[in-house]
Amino acid sequence: MPASDSIPSLQTTLLHRRQRLADLVGCPVVLWSGGRSPRNFPANTYPFRASSHFLYFAGLSLDHAAIRLDNGRMELFMDDPTPADILWHGAMPTRDEIAQQIGAEAAYPLEQLTHRVVGAATVAVQDTGTRYAQAQALRRGLFPTKRPEGLDRELALALVELRLCHDASALAEMRRAIAITVEAHLAGMAATRTATQESEVRAAIEAVMIRRGATPAYTSIVTTRGEVLHSDRSCNRLQPGDLMLVDAGAETESGWASDVTRTYPVSGTFSPTQRDLYDVVLAAHDRCIDYVHSGAEYRTLHWRAALTMADGLAQLGILKGDPESLVEQDAHALFFPHGIGHLLGLDVHDMEDFGDLAGYAPGRVRSDRFGLCYLRLDRPLQAGMVVTIEPGFYQVDALLNDPERRANFDGVVNWERLEEFRDVRGIRIEDDVLVTETGSEVLTVALPTDADSVAQCVRGE
Amino acid sequence: MPASDSIPSLQTTLLHRRQRLADLVGCPVVLWSGGRSPRNFPANTYPFRASSHFLYFAGLSLDHAAIRLDNGRMELFMDDPTPADILWHGAMPTRDEIAQQIGAEAAYPLEQLTHRVVGAATVAVQDTGTRYAQAQALRRGLFPTKRPEGLDRELALALVELRLCHDASALAEMRRAIAITVEAHLAGMAATRTATQESEVRAAIEAVMIRRGATPAYTSIVTTRGEVLHSDRSCNRLQPGDLMLVDAGAETESGWASDVTRTYPVSGTFSPTQRDLYDVVLAAHDRCIDYVHSGAEYRTLHWRAALTMADGLAQLGILKGDPESLVEQDAHALFFPHGIGHLLGLDVHDMEDFGDLAGYAPGRVRSDRFGLCYLRLDRPLQAGMVVTIEPGFYQVDALLNDPERRANFDGVVNWERLEEFRDVRGIRIEDDVLVTETGSEVLTVALPTDADSVAQCVRGE
Repeated sequence: MPASDSIPSLQTTLLHRRQRLADLVGCPVVLWSGGRSPRNFPANTYPFRASSHFLYFAGLSLDHAAIRLDNGRMELFMDDPTPADILWHGAMPTRDEIAQQIGAEAAYPLEQLTHRVVGAATVAVQDTGTRYAQAQALRRGLFPTKRPEGLDRELALALVELRLCHDASALAEMRRAIAITVEAHLAGMAATRTATQESEVRAAIEAVMIRRGATPAYTSIVTTRGEVLHSDRSCNRLQPGDLMLVDAGAETESGWASDVTRTYPVSGTFSPTQRDLYDVVLAAHDRCIDYVHSGAEYRTLHWRAALTMADGLAQLGILKGDPESLVEQDAHALFFPHGIGHLLGLDVHDMEDFGDLAGYAPGRVRSDRFGLCYLRLDRPLQAGMVVTIEPGFYQVDALLNDPERRANFDGVVNWERLEEFRDVRGIRIEDDVLVTETGSEVLTVALPTDADSVAQCVRGE
Repeated sequence: MPASDSIPSLQTTLLHRRQRLADLVGCPVVLWSGGRSPRNFPANTYPFRASSHFLYFAGLSLDHAAIRLDNGRMELFMDDPTPADILWHGAMPTRDEIAQQIGAEAAYPLEQLTHRVVGAATVAVQDTGTRYAQAQALRRGLFPTKRPEGLDRELALALVELRLCHDASALAEMRRAIAITVEAHLAGMAATRTATQESEVRAAIEAVMIRRGATPAYTSIVTTRGEVLHSDRSCNRLQPGDLMLVDAGAETESGWASDVTRTYPVSGTFSPTQRDLYDVVLAAHDRCIDYVHSGAEYRTLHWRAALTMADGLAQLGILKGDPESLVEQDAHALFFPHGIGHLLGLDVHDMEDFGDLAGYAPGRVRSDRFGLCYLRLDRPLQAGMVVTIEPGFYQVDALLNDPERRANFDGVVNWERLEEFRDVRGIRIEDDVLVTETGSEVLTVALPTDADSVAQCVRGE
C-alpha cells in the first residue's frame, strides 16, 4: 500500500482527471450528479448517491449539481442552500466553498447551466427527474446510457478509457472500502458463531459499514442458499451443516466500491464433501490470480477457472472426461454458470451503465454460449485495473433438474456421485485484484481464503 | 394489545379492505406496485419497496405487479419468473401461488392488464418507469399524486378515508414495527456507553432492524446536533456533555412504519440545564398525549404543546410574558418550529404522497404562519388513527441569529438567560399514539420517556 503522503490532494487528483479528459474529448462535457429517488412518497427518499461519472470528476456526492468540464477547466453549477434547507438540514457549505474544496475554477447557480451547455456531451444519469432536466437543458433527446450516440458516445468511450485504470486517489479509496469490508466479513464470521438466522450475520456485517461511515455498495448476499446467485433476502434459519455464503462490499462516502465473497461452514468445521468442493473452487481462484498480469486476457482467466473446476470435479468423480473436453462442452457451467468476475471501481460492476462498452474491448461482443453469456469482462488487462476474481460452485435446481440439460450432460456427469455432495448448495470465493505491470496485488488479502483459516475465523481461533 | 387470534388472516383482511373500497368508489381501481429504482447503474438498484396503496390491498411487496379491484374482487397481474430470474434469484412462487396467498380471485400475466384498465382510477406511483407504464396502459396523462383529478381524485379521497383509521391487521404490523424500534433504541442507548462516534450508535440501531428482517422506515437521525431537524449524517464525535437525539423507526417487511425519537445524555447524566429543558419538552409531550381522544382536534394538540413549551420556557426565564400571548406571537416557534406530529401507517408521514389531502380535513388549508406552516395534520382525531406526538426544543442558529427575527422577538426572549442553556442543541421526544374511543394508547410505551429512566437506560442500570 502506498504511503498516504504519496496520494495527491483531492484538487490535484480532480485536476489531473479533467486534464486527461481534455486530451480525449474535444467538446465541453457537462455531467449531472442526479437527484434523490423517492421511496414511498416524495419527501422520503432513498439515500442519495451521485452518478459515478460526476463523482469521478467532482469528488463529492453533491445532490442536484452539475459540472462543466472544458479543456481542463471545471465549472460547478449548484444552488446555495435555502433558509428552509438550513432549518431542516443544518448549516451547509455554500457553492463557493464547495467549488474551492474541489478546485472548480468557477461556480454558478444551477439555472445558469442552460447558457453553458451548447455543444456539450453528457451521460444520462439514472434518476428520471434529472434525465428530463438534462434533455431540457441540452435541448435534445438523450439516448439511454447503454447505447450513447454521437458526442455522447465519444464521451462514453473517453470515460471508459479514463476509468478503466485507477489513479492513486482512486486506489486509496478502494483500499479504504476494502479495509471496511474485511472488518465487516470478520464481524459476520464472528456473529455466525451465535447466530440462529442469516439476518443476524447480515446485521453484524452491515453494522460495521454503517459504523465506519460507509454503505453497502450493493445488496449484500448473506445466505445459506448460496446456489441462489443474487439472493437478496436473509431470512433462513442457520443449520449446523450449512455453508454460509457472504457476498458483501462497502462503498466509501465518495462512492468507491469493494466486492468480496467468502463461504464458510456455519459450525466452524467443513464436512469432508464441503471441504473437497471448497478446495476445487479455491484452486480455480488461486490459478486465476496467479495468472493476472498486464496484457493477460481476462477471458483466458475465465477459461483457466473453468478448466481448474472441470479438472477438480473430474478428480472428485462428479464429472467424467478430460478437463479440456468437459470445458468445451460447457460441462463446468452446469456448476459455475457465471463469469469469473468484472471491473471494480466507482461501481461494483464498473461502468456497467454503459452496457458492455467498458467490459468488452472494441469489436468484441458477448457470446450467447451457456458458459460465456454472463462473462462481464473481455479485455486484455492493463496495469491499474481492479478486477474481481470469483469462481464458484453451485447446485442450482433449475439447471441440474432441467430434463433437456440433464439429458445433454448425461454422459459427463456422475449424478450418483454428485448426490454425495448434496450438503454443498453454493460456494464462491471472491477477491479484488489490482493488475500491476509485473503481476497483481490482491487488495483483499487481509481476509483469508484457505479453508483452514476461514474455519478458524468462524470458530474465533 | 389484542390477542393474536383476534387478528384475521391476510386474505380476510385484504378482502375486507377491498369491500370497503367498493363501498366508496364506483369504478374499477388499478394499483401498480412500482419497480426498482436504479442506484448507480440499472442492475444495482435500491432495495425495492412497493407503493403503499398497492401494499394496503395486496399485502405483499411484489415487484412489477398490479392489482385490479372491482366491486370487492381482486385480480392480480404479474409475470411468472423467467429461467434467468430463477437462476439468479432462486425458486420463486408463481403468479397463481401468490394470488392464492393474498386471496386474489384471478391472476393474469402483466400484459393482459391493458385490456382491463378501461375507466379505471389509479394512483401514480413514485418510480417514473412504472408511471410511464401506467399512463400508457390507461391511455391518458397522469397527474402527480399531490394533485389528482377526476376519477383519480375520487379514488385518492376514498383511500384517505380507508387508510386514516387502522384495522386489526394494520395495528398488529405497526406494533411489530414498534417492538423492533424499541429494541433498536435500547441497543442504541447501550452502544452510546462505549461509542466515540454517532455512527457507532446508528450502526447498533440499524443492526437490530436488519437482524429482525425490518428496514429503516426513513433515514435514521442519530446525532448530537439535534437542532438539525433532518440531519442525515452521523459523523460527529461524541463529547461527554452532548445530548444524543435519535429519531429512528423500523418498517416491517409488508411496509408498516414506526417513528420514535428519544434524546438522552451521552454521559448517562443530564446537566441541570439539559434536564430543565428536557422536562419542558416532556411536559408538552405528556400534556398532548393526555388530550388525545376521538374527536379531539389535532391542531389543538399542537397549541397545547406550544402553550406548555411557552409556559415552561417562561418559567425557566428564557421567554418573557404569559404563555397565551407568547404563543400568539409565535415566540414558542423560535425553539419549536415544526408541527406536533403527523399520521403514521404504511408511510411514516402517512399518505403524504397525496400532499395535504390526508393530513388536512376537507376545506382546511395549511397556514403560512411561522408557527404553523410545518403542521402536517389538521383534522379531528378518530378512533383507529395512529399519530405521532413529537414536541421539541432546538437552538437553530439560522432562526435565533437571523437579525430580523431576533429584533422581532427581542422583547420576549431573554437572550442572556438563553446563553446559559447553550449545552442544549436539540431535544425531541416522539411517541406513536393510537387514538381510541375513550382516549389513547401509547404504542411506544415500552421505551421510557422520563429523564431518569432514559438516563438509566443509557447507563445500563
